[in-house]
Amino acid sequence: MNFSYTSVASCSHTKARAGIFHTPHGIVETPKFMPVGTVGTVKGITPAQLKDAHAQMILGNTYHLHIRPGEDIVSKAGGLHGFMNWEQPILTDSGGFQVFSLAQMRKISEEGVKFRSPKDGKIINMTPEHSIQIQNALGADVIMAFDECPPATATREEVITATDRTYRWLKRCMDAHQKPHSQALFGIVQGGIFQDLRNQAAHDLTQLDLPGYAIGGVSVGEKPELIHEIVRQTTPLLPAHKPRYLMGVGTYKEMVIAIASGIDLFDCVIPTRVGRHGAALVQGERWNIKNARFKEDFTPLDGECSCYTCQNFSRAYLNHLLRAHEMLGYILISLHNIHEMINFTNKIRNSIINDTFLDDFGHWL
Amino acid sequence: MNFSYTSVASCSHTKARAGIFHTPHGIVETPKFMPVGTVGTVKGITPAQLKDAHAQMILGNTYHLHIRPGEDIVSKAGGLHGFMNWEQPILTDSGGFQVFSLAQMRKISEEGVKFRSPKDGKIINMTPEHSIQIQNALGADVIMAFDECPPATATREEVITATDRTYRWLKRCMDAHQKPHSQALFGIVQGGIFQDLRNQAAHDLTQLDLPGYAIGGVSVGEKPELIHEIVRQTTPLLPAHKPRYLMGVGTYKEMVIAIASGIDLFDCVIPTRVGRHGAALVQGERWNIKNARFKEDFTPLDGECSCYTCQNFSRAYLNHLLRAHEMLGYILISLHNIHEMINFTNKIRNSIINDTFLDDFGHWL
Ligand SMILES: [Zn+2]
Ligand SMILES: [Zn+2]
Repeated sequence: MNFSYTSVASCSHTKARAGIFHTPHGIVETPKFMPVGTVGTVKGITPAQLKDAHAQMILGNTYHLHIRPGEDIVSKAGGLHGFMNWEQPILTDSGGFQVFSLAQMRKISEEGVKFRSPKDGKIINMTPEHSIQIQNALGADVIMAFDECPPATATREEVITATDRTYRWLKRCMDAHQKPHSQALFGIVQGGIFQDLRNQAAHDLTQLDLPGYAIGGVSVGEKPELIHEIVRQTTPLLPAHKPRYLMGVGTYKEMVIAIASGIDLFDCVIPTRVGRHGAALVQGERWNIKNARFKEDFTPLDGECSCYTCQNFSRAYLNHLLRAHEMLGYILISLHNIHEMINFTNKIRNSIINDTFLDDFGHWL
Repeated sequence: MNFSYTSVASCSHTKARAGIFHTPHGIVETPKFMPVGTVGTVKGITPAQLKDAHAQMILGNTYHLHIRPGEDIVSKAGGLHGFMNWEQPILTDSGGFQVFSLAQMRKISEEGVKFRSPKDGKIINMTPEHSIQIQNALGADVIMAFDECPPATATREEVITATDRTYRWLKRCMDAHQKPHSQALFGIVQGGIFQDLRNQAAHDLTQLDLPGYAIGGVSVGEKPELIHEIVRQTTPLLPAHKPRYLMGVGTYKEMVIAIASGIDLFDCVIPTRVGRHGAALVQGERWNIKNARFKEDFTPLDGECSCYTCQNFSRAYLNHLLRAHEMLGYILISLHNIHEMINFTNKIRNSIINDTFLDDFGHWL
């Protein structure tokens, strides 16, 4: 088996756990934050810089990579690893989230989703089989089932329909998957804000004995308290000997609550998205570094941070770069933000190993 | 003396020379291309990446840094070296070129130049003394005299006026200079396209025994043949035991001709400016990497280049990044372009040391 989850330590007071997820491209030490490399690049950051930030697994987007440059080109380049020169683990999402949230003029049926390509207007027919075929060509270590993610406003009836369809689509994904030995297919628990539907979905998916499980549809606009409760209730229902991934979540409080419930993996675009707008994640807060108060502040962004940005530059310099609209400003802040999120999960991992998780991070719970 | 030029080798067939320019922040092995870091950053490139590209001396712009963030802030950060975290040599221009070419509503007099700040509309009075005061605060290893650079269309009379004024301004710069032991003030030979005026200026400046000399005003729109001739005639008139700098020139042919005439230092914004538009400098040509012919080209940008970009990525990947408007595309191409220009001068330096300069680079002459 090319994929396995090994337990390293468990928290005495919560369901938090430290582990190692083995993949064909190396290990992922969990809990771990995964930076998002939408179209085959974590925005503005080189692979060498990502490595310095202690990234292990990173994300690619099936929808975006299918639109441009297309999976054929990526495949000819030796897959996404070779194309973007990232030799550590990669995970691709199924494209479902983007198809449902971004695509224009989409039409959903049992078969799949039809939508117009934003690149050339051509009709794209995205089905579970097509998503897996694309993901097989991209060659990531972990691939995700093509699911229907209903909006936060969906009625119970709509969520039941989507969750049932997601289950049928998962079975089609499993049948279509051509490379189970080199790519692990994760199933996604949906169910909206209805805990009984989540319970049922977790139960059904667990029967399928997949190499990993994700909780999806929890970052689509619900109240934070609802997300926390769903994660608390659903995570323990997923098999303990498999990696557990909470999709699209990467804020401090939400990660601590999820880890305390037994989640291992996170992804989020926040570090690079806010970095591109000059906001730095420092000491649990979000600071606008363009602010005049940093103009003559010659201290590092975060005095305790070991990232390249904090080790080499001052807030005053970053403030200057942002005010001058210099690319390097966005790069250096994104670099810090990614390092910060990864380091946050690394510190949590160490606290679980030392069994000090509740003492060190309990104030977030 | 903190500044000296040591000869390493001379070409038997041309006036080309290899040397070492010593500065308080280390050596510059000449001939050498210097990347331009306009406002305290070489656009999109970190100091660590610059070092990897074998940069030694880099440029800062007095005009831009005075406008934003202002020399006070840079000075409080420990000078430009500390502010931008570049511990190797730095050269600042005088601001003259920008004042004459960019500033709105400028008024030139014997005193200096008055213009409106593009940042806040305030009147700035840039004089030789003010330029040197700013450059003393910025703290670069090499600072440039504040000169008047007439446009290519200037009449002989206008060029005489500007050249005479440049000489008087130079003497004022020398008087105003507060840090001759830690900052070398270079004089600038002007004279437009009139060789007799260039000769006279070179003669006059040489009498002043400055630590280095530059040829200015040769990249303001004249025909290339005129530039070549001026450089060929003027360079040998400058003292052989001092560094010689050809301002604003950094194209292959022009650098080879200048080096064959005895020039040591070059600067140019081309590598980063064209890089930001997706053009790569490859094998003496400028390639538009967005072009469809690179879409499935999985070879490196330049198979013989040792830069980070060429060692790790394909033309197809760069093509994809540019088409997706991804920052990393501009970064990686700028990185290659800078490495390419520096490496071009490094290869020339080696050929001079091996006395194969004419064989290896004579086809450019
Ligand atoms: Zn940092
Ligand atoms: Zn290269």
